[in-house]
Amino acid sequence: MKRIGFLTSGGDCQSLNATMRGVAKTLYQANPDVEIYGILEGYKGLIYGNRRKMEPKDFSGILTEGGTIIGTSRQPFKKMGEPDENGLDKVKAMLDNYKKWKLDCLVILGGNGTHKTANLLSEKGCNVVTLPKTIDNDIWGTDITFGFQSAVNIATNAIDCIHTTAASHGRVFIVEVMGHKVGWLTLHAGIAGGADIILLPEIPYDINSVVKALEKRSAQGKRFSILAVAEGAISKEDAALSKKELKAKRKKMAYPSISYEIGAQIQEKTGQEVRITVPGHMQRGGEPCPYDRVLSTRLGAAAAQLIIKEKYGYMVGMVNGETVPVPLSEVAGKLKMVDPKASIIQEIKEMGICFGD
Amino acid sequence: MKRIGFLTSGGDCQSLNATMRGVAKTLYQANPDVEIYGILEGYKGLIYGNRRKMEPKDFSGILTEGGTIIGTSRQPFKKMGEPDENGLDKVKAMLDNYKKWKLDCLVILGGNGTHKTANLLSEKGCNVVTLPKTIDNDIWGTDITFGFQSAVNIATNAIDCIHTTAASHGRVFIVEVMGHKVGWLTLHAGIAGGADIILLPEIPYDINSVVKALEKRSAQGKRFSILAVAEGAISKEDAALSKKELKAKRKKMAYPSISYEIGAQIQEKTGQEVRITVPGHMQRGGEPCPYDRVLSTRLGAAAAQLIIKEKYGYMVGMVNGETVPVPLSEVAGKLKMVDPKASIIQEIKEMGICFGD
Amino acid sequence: MKRIGFLTSGGDCQSLNATMRGVAKTLYQANPDVEIYGILEGYKGLIYGNRRKMEPKDFSGILTEGGTIIGTSRQPFKKMGEPDENGLDKVKAMLDNYKKWKLDCLVILGGNGTHKTANLLSEKGCNVVTLPKTIDNDIWGTDITFGFQSAVNIATNAIDCIHTTAASHGRVFIVEVMGHKVGWLTLHAGIAGGADIILLPEIPYDINSVVKALEKRSAQGKRFSILAVAEGAISKEDAALSKKELKAKRKKMAYPSISYEIGAQIQEKTGQEVRITVPGHMQRGGEPCPYDRVLSTRLGAAAAQLIIKEKYGYMVGMVNGETVPVPLSEVAGKLKMVDPKASIIQEIKEMGICFGD
Amino acid sequence: MKRIGFLTSGGDCQSLNATMRGVAKTLYQANPDVEIYGILEGYKGLIYGNRRKMEPKDFSGILTEGGTIIGTSRQPFKKMGEPDENGLDKVKAMLDNYKKWKLDCLVILGGNGTHKTANLLSEKGCNVVTLPKTIDNDIWGTDITFGFQSAVNIATNAIDCIHTTAASHGRVFIVEVMGHKVGWLTLHAGIAGGADIILLPEIPYDINSVVKALEKRSAQGKRFSILAVAEGAISKEDAALSKKELKAKRKKMAYPSISYEIGAQIQEKTGQEVRITVPGHMQRGGEPCPYDRVLSTRLGAAAAQLIIKEKYGYMVGMVNGETVPVPLSEVAGKLKMVDPKASIIQEIKEMGICFGD
Repeated sequence: MKRIGFLTSGGDCQSLNATMRGVAKTLYQANPDVEIYGILEGYKGLIYGNRRKMEPKDFSGILTEGGTIIGTSRQPFKKMGEPDENGLDKVKAMLDNYKKWKLDCLVILGGNGTHKTANLLSEKGCNVVTLPKTIDNDIWGTDITFGFQSAVNIATNAIDCIHTTAASHGRVFIVEVMGHKVGWLTLHAGIAGGADIILLPEIPYDINSVVKALEKRSAQGKRFSILAVAEGAISKEDAALSKKELKAKRKKMAYPSISYEIGAQIQEKTGQEVRITVPGHMQRGGEPCPYDRVLSTRLGAAAAQLIIKEKYGYMVGMVNGETVPVPLSEVAGKLKMVDPKASIIQEIKEMGICFGD
Repeated sequence: MKRIGFLTSGGDCQSLNATMRGVAKTLYQANPDVEIYGILEGYKGLIYGNRRKMEPKDFSGILTEGGTIIGTSRQPFKKMGEPDENGLDKVKAMLDNYKKWKLDCLVILGGNGTHKTANLLSEKGCNVVTLPKTIDNDIWGTDITFGFQSAVNIATNAIDCIHTTAASHGRVFIVEVMGHKVGWLTLHAGIAGGADIILLPEIPYDINSVVKALEKRSAQGKRFSILAVAEGAISKEDAALSKKELKAKRKKMAYPSISYEIGAQIQEKTGQEVRITVPGHMQRGGEPCPYDRVLSTRLGAAAAQLIIKEKYGYMVGMVNGETVPVPLSEVAGKLKMVDPKASIIQEIKEMGICFGD
Repeated sequence: MKRIGFLTSGGDCQSLNATMRGVAKTLYQANPDVEIYGILEGYKGLIYGNRRKMEPKDFSGILTEGGTIIGTSRQPFKKMGEPDENGLDKVKAMLDNYKKWKLDCLVILGGNGTHKTANLLSEKGCNVVTLPKTIDNDIWGTDITFGFQSAVNIATNAIDCIHTTAASHGRVFIVEVMGHKVGWLTLHAGIAGGADIILLPEIPYDINSVVKALEKRSAQGKRFSILAVAEGAISKEDAALSKKELKAKRKKMAYPSISYEIGAQIQEKTGQEVRITVPGHMQRGGEPCPYDRVLSTRLGAAAAQLIIKEKYGYMVGMVNGETVPVPLSEVAGKLKMVDPKASIIQEIKEMGICFGD
Repeated sequence: MKRIGFLTSGGDCQSLNATMRGVAKTLYQANPDVEIYGILEGYKGLIYGNRRKMEPKDFSGILTEGGTIIGTSRQPFKKMGEPDENGLDKVKAMLDNYKKWKLDCLVILGGNGTHKTANLLSEKGCNVVTLPKTIDNDIWGTDITFGFQSAVNIATNAIDCIHTTAASHGRVFIVEVMGHKVGWLTLHAGIAGGADIILLPEIPYDINSVVKALEKRSAQGKRFSILAVAEGAISKEDAALSKKELKAKRKKMAYPSISYEIGAQIQEKTGQEVRITVPGHMQRGGEPCPYDRVLSTRLGAAAAQLIIKEKYGYMVGMVNGETVPVPLSEVAGKLKMVDPKASIIQEIKEMGICFGD
């Protein structure tokens, strides 16, 4: 253990710095002579050779800081292994820099896309340890990802804010929560915010069920309703389409996002006034919450232990309250989705929350 | 002082309940036999005769509650004095209910539109005391309105959240802040959030100045920039148009709001990636902040004193730290705008913040 | 399922109302005719016959409200089964009211003391379902209790606030965190707040180890240090005493709490200025955080399912992410403590955090 | 304008960095060659010659950071002009360093004590501009000081947290708020937190009035009461003592602070259970709130303008919403206290809040 490269890739989120601090503090504690390099702006830095020598003090005071002190960028590959716009072989470039810099290990923090590339690098001979970063909580092999709980807090706060307005004006409010493919964030924020209707990508909705739920509430004398809708919510109709057909249909959609379509349908079918709020990028920003800070610190410390023991090729996950190494090959390419039959869904459904199905 | 009607009108905001609590507690303290009625859902309740007898305990525990416990609705008049869709004379209906209910005074909480109607009722012989409610801070006759500081906090928090993402990804971020006609909220949130560029309705912008400011930042090695843009921000070009021309132009605009247009222009002219966040209705929701609670409590208490002294026809404002009665006739129909020559603007400009002018 | 009594007992905490809402909404959903009674101020209400009929609307809007809408009071027994100060047999009184009110089930929310009495009532023939409430997270049979995460947030926020002052002044700061017997809250807040030293009841400390850790930090050029100290932190010396000896020694202690003693020792041994902050009761107050709201909603919904299935004599716990019924007899009288050998402790220790051992 | 020294002195508070950022950004904007030095740890740094050259990037990203990036320490003089423990003439040492470093101006951020020394330095020939820093809001010549509103938020939050517990248990709760000599913080937090009784240093209390107010609440069926008590609250009895007598009496007091004494008296006289919470140093920590960030930015920018115009010997205050220069000689040695006859007190009193008088 001599030279370690840190790399953060994909959309930023709240607890990246806290996680890197956990890794770094443990490494320095084990060996004060360890050299840590920040590879700048994600895989770009590894491809084009941009890095920065980090010092112990760089990791002081960052436990509570959002974002990433070493920058990030999108996944480098749309198609795995493709060259860049100038024909550069990006995979080779990464392997070359890894060797040139004499790195003993790459510590890579990222989401699903990031893990595919990390697995590739591992297969090509790099020592790699990864950490599960995403507000979407959709990484296979861990019960929970860092960033998720902080994002739940922000999305819930958005619903809380909307609540008072909805109640005062007697309206239907839609809060659109991040999550194109998976609904964890919408599910948790929806429950925490007391949403009456929760629409997830994993449970296609029937607009008539949604309308019925709204009318039931009106009949009970309730003046307002709140919907938590995932960006990737999808109607049963659309779910039946092929990928191509759906893409074509969406392209023609007159609305900036699915929430607006749902809103228009509700307004038309119920006559109730509908308002839409999109907290958007706010959900991945700001301070990590205490839950994430503890999670990140533990995951980071456990990642450092793997490095110290020279156990490479793993992501560190949190399973049943314990940090565990999960082989990268098992993580890459899988998505952890909400199971419509999970007990959490059943419990909430039996409280009267509508999932539109 | 026997029978007092409370009425909240217009868009809700954070400290309406705290204000009504201030009025009610002071009235009950002065005379435990006072009868307070909540007129439901704004002027609608006064027009169509919906009210609710309030009890002292209704005003307990609401100091920290957002929204309004008596509901609200839009201003009843687009054109002052017009009848409703069934031909009902709304003004007469309000005066009739005022008499029928034997009210001694109406306490009306609302913004600019609300004050026009309040003034009309006052001129027609109703005893009226009003309170300046709006997140826009644009009511004439008071230094500050309740709701404003709470909204500043939320809009600032949105910028804070965006900050970490902007810094991590090296992007231009636009946060669109509420305010169609006035820029107080954008100005304060922009300063508090450390925005690099602030665009207000009162200071028409030149997109080239904005671009120049962004390029200057890039030249200084800064990887990201943040713009706080009011909903009602307007380019110099557009500001030169007649109302009609502008309306026509806006109708054809391909973007959901001005921020998207500005974003597209920046992206085109600088090649930098731009992201837009619209906290929207969140800005008027949630708990009132301590500043607003103190302000509301004081304004409410002072309004009660006017009622006790049977001094009607006034809005209670806060001027230089003191509660003052302002004649309704002076308030109605005026707008308190940001003066482009105000010292706050000069101070900030000389720090290097760009206003696009 | 006809008549259900709700009862909250022991110190209040943040998510009691959210939990009761989960139970009530599910019960009403299953059977709109169910009668729910709030038994007032904990077991007192059951002993002395005070209750209130609840309506569905009582459970609306309380998801985010701290405290308990039906009041609470201390455990009724210091010695299980003892009579009250007037000689009243409290156990009999509770059983009598249970019968008199024709209750089908008691839903009891409380901590360890509460569970002993709940188990007693169950053994005496009452139908009982319980829910694990405590900021201490020390209830056996569940991975997590509601209230805990909200309290972690507040205690962490206290450390965050202190951080800036400690850094500005270059001082040693002690934040005393709630927890007389168990250290979960201190452990999590300490990690989340970035404390340098964490002292728990389960890991007796040697003041010399603490001092050594502080001196090591000074030697590294760090100007300040932060200690998270549990109310029940105990020195190795004191841990070796008998209960009686310890009580006698503590009685003579010149300090209001252990933190002050530790502070005085540090000041004497290192010459550094020490400040102590005690957030105290704040830790159990305020809004439940989104994590707790989801947890509470799920636990409450699962408790209702047990009642619907007439499965009595259980506490609902959360184990590995699933709600599970745990026999009351297994829960009562046990304490879930921090295991000094747990991986969380090892992970943090290897980051260089000192536990004083 | 060439070489400027920044110095923060006295207890830290939330918006020191934001203020320095305002000064620095404006100075750099006016003249990119200006040299700014951070004089370390308050006047100590000026006395003993410790400073650090600052760069523009040091002032980036600190708008939201609590504490002070250049450190602080207590006022250097108990008696103005006294030498240090080694006989060093501290005044001379400061003047010598000022000359040796060829400073063109000192920018000093501090409270009342700090201003006495700043005035002394100004009288001795240094160019000085100061800024009003304190959570106490007791500096003469400005309507408001930075730090105050952030501290109000924290103290109010403490009361909010306590509220739910007080309501659940039916107890009397005392929240002790910072402020030895002045009550602004207690007054504002007390109003914002909905305290029933507010005790300030400026309005000596009669414990019997306090008890009467509590009993009145009990008689009205209210189960709990909350007192906001300033650290420096004083009974009428004690207020009548000479300084010496009071000091002697306080020394013998069995309680750690006045709140505990008041609590014991209430418990004895009413039989109600009393709990006390002391948020303490938390009140000066953490992030500055948006209000303070705007205030600090404006004050800082205005201070820079004075320097640019070589207008020395002033504190920058905020008066009726405008930044104004106030001669140091007018500021030094004065205290801005709460006037018991101020309209804010009258307004609140007539709502039924008890001030104990």
